[in-house]
Amino acid sequence: MKQVMVVRSDLGLSKGKTAAQCCHASLQAYRSADPKKIEKWEGEGYTKIILKVPSLEELLELKKIAGQNKIPHFLVTDAGRTEIPSGTVTCLGLGPDEDRIIDKVTKDLKLLS
Amino acid sequence: MKQVMVVRSDLGLSKGKTAAQCCHASLQAYRSADPKKIEKWEGEGYTKIILKVPSLEELLELKKIAGQNKIPHFLVTDAGRTEIPSGTVTCLGLGPDEDRIIDKVTKDLKLLS
Repeated sequence: MKQVMVVRSDLGLSKGKTAAQCCHASLQAYRSADPKKIEKWEGEGYTKIILKVPSLEELLELKKIAGQNKIPHFLVTDAGRTEIPSGTVTCLGLGPDEDRIIDKVTKDLKLLS
Repeated sequence: MKQVMVVRSDLGLSKGKTAAQCCHASLQAYRSADPKKIEKWEGEGYTKIILKVPSLEELLELKKIAGQNKIPHFLVTDAGRTEIPSGTVTCLGLGPDEDRIIDKVTKDLKLLS
């Protein structure tokens, strides 16, 4: 089981801003997940992984695939108080769900380092 | 209302690793918060702020102050699969709670940029 947050690398967000966007995505995706899957995820140490995409278009495509696969997800649109304009889409939270299900969306993506 | 994550800057964590630690802190502090305060926080747009401290000692001191002020909080100890040794304390999640209450712990800290 895992939860994955996918961040747009093209925005050049700072470390702090990136973390805040991921926290939004993580919490909101968590709240839409199946309680049984949440319990299983916690039993396995609630793995969270941060990946990246180079564009808005790719992030929106991942959101579409997540919906098609009925994966709990949340797309973060920033309020724009710092760094980026209001309404900027920054991050997608996925799961928690089974690894093999999340991998349908994220298998080709790289870790955000 | 706000939730604050305080990260150790002395560990030199990557952007992705920092985000993952903050996600742990955010979710676990959220789960120990008062449901009425969570509701109020959400009504205000669930503000999340990422701050930094330069050492483990300072982070542990903040945890102590949070406890004394009965602020819901969670101290993250990393499983150590990447970047840092297992058992490293990385991050403290605080709240959601009233701004004036959280500020008792974090008022002198700087934003993580």
